Parts: sequence; C-alpha cells; structure tokens
Amino acid sequence: MTEFSTTAGRLLEAMRAQRPLVQNITNFVSMDVAANALLAVGASPAMVHAPEETPEFVAFSGALVVNIGTLSAPWVEAMHVAASSAHTLGKPWALDPVGAGATTFRNHVVEHLLALQPRLIRGNASEIMAVAKIAGVGGEGARPKGVDSANATSEAEAVAVALAAKLGCVVAATGAVDFITDGARSLRLANGSPLMERVTALGCALTGVCGAFLAVEGDAFAATAAAIAVYGVAGELAAERCKGPGSFRVAFLDRLACVSEEDLAARLKVIA
Amino acid sequence: MTEFSTTAGRLLEAMRAQRPLVQNITNFVSMDVAANALLAVGASPAMVHAPEETPEFVAFSGALVVNIGTLSAPWVEAMHVAASSAHTLGKPWALDPVGAGATTFRNHVVEHLLALQPRLIRGNASEIMAVAKIAGVGGEGARPKGVDSANATSEAEAVAVALAAKLGCVVAATGAVDFITDGARSLRLANGSPLMERVTALGCALTGVCGAFLAVEGDAFAATAAAIAVYGVAGELAAERCKGPGSFRVAFLDRLACVSEEDLAARLKVIA
Amino acid sequence: MTEFSTTAGRLLEAMRAQRPLVQNITNFVSMDVAANALLAVGASPAMVHAPEETPEFVAFSGALVVNIGTLSAPWVEAMHVAASSAHTLGKPWALDPVGAGATTFRNHVVEHLLALQPRLIRGNASEIMAVAKIAGVGGEGARPKGVDSANATSEAEAVAVALAAKLGCVVAATGAVDFITDGARSLRLANGSPLMERVTALGCALTGVCGAFLAVEGDAFAATAAAIAVYGVAGELAAERCKGPGSFRVAFLDRLACVSEEDLAARLKVIA
Repeated sequence: MTEFSTTAGRLLEAMRAQRPLVQNITNFVSMDVAANALLAVGASPAMVHAPEETPEFVAFSGALVVNIGTLSAPWVEAMHVAASSAHTLGKPWALDPVGAGATTFRNHVVEHLLALQPRLIRGNASEIMAVAKIAGVGGEGARPKGVDSANATSEAEAVAVALAAKLGCVVAATGAVDFITDGARSLRLANGSPLMERVTALGCALTGVCGAFLAVEGDAFAATAAAIAVYGVAGELAAERCKGPGSFRVAFLDRLACVSEEDLAARLKVIA
Repeated sequence: MTEFSTTAGRLLEAMRAQRPLVQNITNFVSMDVAANALLAVGASPAMVHAPEETPEFVAFSGALVVNIGTLSAPWVEAMHVAASSAHTLGKPWALDPVGAGATTFRNHVVEHLLALQPRLIRGNASEIMAVAKIAGVGGEGARPKGVDSANATSEAEAVAVALAAKLGCVVAATGAVDFITDGARSLRLANGSPLMERVTALGCALTGVCGAFLAVEGDAFAATAAAIAVYGVAGELAAERCKGPGSFRVAFLDRLACVSEEDLAARLKVIA
Repeated sequence: MTEFSTTAGRLLEAMRAQRPLVQNITNFVSMDVAANALLAVGASPAMVHAPEETPEFVAFSGALVVNIGTLSAPWVEAMHVAASSAHTLGKPWALDPVGAGATTFRNHVVEHLLALQPRLIRGNASEIMAVAKIAGVGGEGARPKGVDSANATSEAEAVAVALAAKLGCVVAATGAVDFITDGARSLRLANGSPLMERVTALGCALTGVCGAFLAVEGDAFAATAAAIAVYGVAGELAAERCKGPGSFRVAFLDRLACVSEEDLAARLKVIA
C-alpha cells in the first residue's frame, strides 16, 4: 500500500519539523524510555502531572498522553484534571489503558477517563478488549496477564471497531500485528519484532509517539497509523543488529532517530 | 557443586516455562531496570502499588516484591497493604530493605514489614546487618553509606543465619560474595562483576528476579540461590564484553535473556 | 586555559577518591540516568525524599540536589524540608529549576526555594532567564518550550551574572555553550555534543554530578566548572563512537567512568 507509506513518511517529516511539545502523565516504569523515544523520534516531551499546573501546561502543549500504568488516588486526580483541560480546550489526548481488566480499580479509572473523550486509545489486545467491555461493546474474552496480553490482536479487532464507533475516537490494538481503526476505516500492520515485548514500557512509549503525531495531524486515524508504522519499522531495523533485549532497546532508540521515508517505503507491511 | 548448578538450571527452565507474574512495589530508581531484568530473565513483571487494587492484584500474582528504596508515607501504606495481602493469602513475598540502618524512619518501616513474614530478605551486607539489629539478633557493626554498603558479606554471615532462624525465612546478603541462608542451610556464591555496583538498582532488580523464582519453587532457599546464581553468571558473562557501566548494563540484560543451564554448569563458583 | 584543566582534573580525582554521598530529590524521568551518571563518575548517589527522613539523611550526605522536574504538592514539601535542612546545616545544595517559566506553579516553587540559598543553580538558558525574572534581575526574554530551551546560552549570560551576584551563589546556564558564573568570575565552555539534548534528563544528571563536586570542594565556582568540564568532555568522547541517542547514552556513561585528567587537558574548550 504505497499510498499509506507516503502519508506516513510525510507525517514523520512534518512532526520532526514542528517538534511538538507532548505532555505525558505516564507511569513510573515508562518515564525514562517514553521521554527518550519521543526525543529520539523528534518530538519534545514533558512529564508534568500536578493538578496545580496541568491546565496551564496542556494549553501550550500539542497533545496530552495519559497512561494508567502505576496508579494511585492522587495520580488519578491528576489524570482527570489534565484530560478535562484537553477536552475543554479541544487538544488531542491519547489514553493508554495499561492493565485494564486486571483490577476493579483500574476499570473504574478507565470508565471515568473515557467520558473525557480521548482522541486515541492504544493498548495491547487484552487491554482493548477490557476497555470495550467497560464501554459496553463486547470484549468478554479479555484475558489480561497483569499488564501483558494473553489475547492476539485478531481477537480484539471486532470490538476495537465497535469501541471506536461508539466513542468517536481511534482505537489501536498493538502486538505482533497492529490493528488501527476509527470505526469506519481500519488498517493492519505487521512490522516490529518479538523483542519489543521483552523491553519494558515500549507499548507506553508508543502511545507517547502517537501523541506527537496527533499534535501535528488532525486526522487521528492517519496520525496514529503513521506513528505505529514508524515505530514498527524502527523496531524491525533495530532487531537486525542486536544480541538481546538490552541491546535492542539501545538500537531501537538509535533507529527511531534516523528512520526515514525510504525505510517506510521499503519496509512497511500492510496486511489484508 | 554440580548438584546445585543442576538445581539452578532446572529452576531457571521452570521459571522461563511458567513466566510468572511478579508484582513489584519498588523504588523510582529501579522501576525501569527491575522490570527489564524480569522481562529479560523470562518473567512477567507488573509495578502496582495502589492500596485500592493491590489485594486483588496480589491474588493472581505469583509473588510480591517490596523494595523500600524511595519511601514516603503513602508508599509505606501501600507496602503494608500489599504485604498483608500476600501474608494472608500465603503468597511468597520478598523484602529489599534498601538503606536500612541509614535513618530512623527506614528502620521503623522495616520493623513493621518484618511482622508480615517475608519469605526472603535480600540486601547488601550493611542492610542485612541493620535488619538483624532491628530484629534483635546482632548487627551492631552495620555501616551503611546511604544505600551502599561499607561492610563485606563476611561480616553479615553470622547475623544472616540468626535472622533467618528467628524469622523463619531466607536471608541473602549479596555483594562480591553472596551468602544465602535459611538458618539451617547456607551457600556462598562468588560470581558476578565489580561493575554490578556501578550500575544503579541492580541489587533491587535482583530481588525482583528472586521473586520470579519464589513464584515457581516452594523451597525458598533453593529458589533464592538459583536466582542469585543465574544473576551472577549473567553478570560475569556480561562483564567480559563491555567498556564500562553503560555498556555493562546493556550486555547484562542481553545475558539474562540467554544465560543457560550450560553456562551455570560451566561458571558457577560455589565457595566454602 | 591550562590552569583550569589542571584544577578540573584535580577535583575529579579528589571526588573519585572521596566518593561523596549525594542526596537527590529529583524527577521521575531522571531517577535512573542521574543515579547512573553519579555512579559512573565515581560518586555515591541516594534518592531520598520523605520529609520523615530527609533532615537525618542530609546530615550525613556530602551535598543535596533538588530538581523540580515532576512536581506535586507532597514533593514540593519534601524539597522544602530537605533544602531547609541543608541550609541550616551549611551543606551545599544545588537547584535544578526544570521548566521554570513554563507555569505559575513552577515559578512559585522556585521562588520559595531561592529563599533557602542554593549554592548552585543550573539550568538551560530559558530556565536561568526565568529564574532571573523571578528574582527580579531581568530575564524578560525567556522562551521556555516545556522543559526545553528556545534561548541560546548567550542570551542568559548577563542575567546569570546578575542572579549570581544577587543571590550570592553560582549560576550555570548550559547548552551548546556552558556559562558558569559566581557574579564576579565567569567561564565559558564549549565541549559536549548535540546528542546530549536528544537523551532525556542529561541536564538533570549534570546537576547531580555538580552536587558530587560541591561535596568535595568549597569553592562552588571551581567545583561547578569542573563538573561541567568533565561532563562535556565525556559527552564529546562518547559522541565519537555512537550511532544515535540510544548508543550515545550508553557510551556517555562508559566515558564518565573513565574520563581522565589527560582527556581534560587535551579536550577542554574554554572560549572567550
């Protein structure tokens, strides 16, 4: 699908040229790698969560990313204040529902955040199925294993479409295959590497990178698909010259910084 | 000691096959590397600390690890709720008493956690001596330097045995030499590399890896010794091809992912 | 300027010999890399923030570093308690005013911390200009972009001198060019690499390393200049053999661990 790789390449260049400021309220595990992935790919990350300053900070950020990985009551409040600000200001914000379905508390947090209309929800297959269940559109077969997924992407596709249609947002279930949908359009990508699941928080960092693309492109479906394409191709290139999860993470950040339109054209695997 | 390397290799394979979910309440410094070490060695880590969800999360986790590195009142409460849940449910939980002996606050936190019967206490020599002092079984010579140790493992051995016997748990004092005891049995290992002390939180991450082995083996002494053996051999292999602490950390995660029964058989240094 | 490289080399050796304990209250993003940079360069870091223990911990630390990157009300209180302790005890403490100027909340936090007399304030050009504005000595042109700087170091020099003179401390604005002043003396260094801005929290980690030098040298101007010199030369050496921001970070930590007096003599770029 040449057309899509051209779009992805164009959005990558636009994002690098604009270097958007992306505000992240993310978990403690992903703080380092999410900031490094955003810097590597060409964006300007800031991790800011205090309710005292988030409304002001959201206002000059290009996008907000909310990740529920390591929750506690004060952080839940911080997420609400920030997402409410983004919603009110019409800023795009992305939700990463880490561990959705694993506990009742987590499900409640997701339920309340959904009301603030994220522009994107990105998670693994189990998480997307769990979010769909919370939203009342299926997802009965969700089998989260802590923060990992025991479901394949294919199991989450139908509910991802239903969830996107119901909420009017983009939904992306990522894994060995990535499925992106806005309810009407959908796309399957098959880049990346199995090593991406052996490095912590690379899913969280991907949602951050999606935020950078949402900041520069109003079509959230195209923005998300481009971000996931860039990320997967960088992962595939990195896997070719590493010896395990430690060196993979290093090579991946190197590759995010230099992945090009040509790499996308040569590598992107759009599957039917 | 061929017998022990065989046991360690068997437990490593069992752990990798089961991929246990290990819940960690750990410090902010170690979040990234502890999660990455657990993923690399073959386990499934989750960093979850909210009292609202820990009882539910502990119930489906294979083990819990509590690390007191970066304390504050809400985190102390979180640790108590989680450790209480583990205690009530009979789940193995490991305590990493970072900086024990350094401040009065830290000592009080340790004292209360000891009452919840950890299955394992792992620390450096100064920390183990400080915990022994808190438990009233010696340790007068503890000389913590912040979160580092100014004591050698040999100074901690006698109190480690006394501590293990009094609490009915396993105690491991690790450093250039690692000493593991359950009060009756004991083992000294001498693998690893001096570079392990030049990379932050590798001790914390080791306690996480011990948690993964406790999740799959009921004999906590064998589980702990196997985890420390795997960790030390991976460190030794990593040190052979690195240029400093930065590249050591990378090589170490690579090695944790591929260290084998054969490596253990060839490398393990059990000392008298 | 042979004299300065000799001083820097001497202070580096002194710091490595003493291995000072440096207490850090830092942001969640920099926890890992700041601790690793301090370990690599030869110091002993501890991340300790609970008000229940900081007064006790500050008392046996060599220096305190306070970084406001990821704020919240409890952390602001923690910073005040720790900085007050350092002030009362006459311990050197360094302030890293991350994101100063970006929000009203951040500016208030900085204003209150300035009253506790930091020995050093280190930030990027926009942050130093914003702090100068808070202190009423200019800085009207500050253009922070989240936690990044849209100002060049040259724009911050005059206000850095005024700020240092008013507060009686050292001020360092770092970037492509580093400017260090105590109001009377000043120094410009031009080592480092553009890659340092593509790795998160390397500025935060630099303030940590400055803390290690402040712990062993009473002349805060010399200590800060030496720390920045060591850091810049290590960065320059690391950039020579890396492929992007991922491998740069790894090589940088390797280089911090082995940068020598000879490297400083050969590489330091003091500019007029």
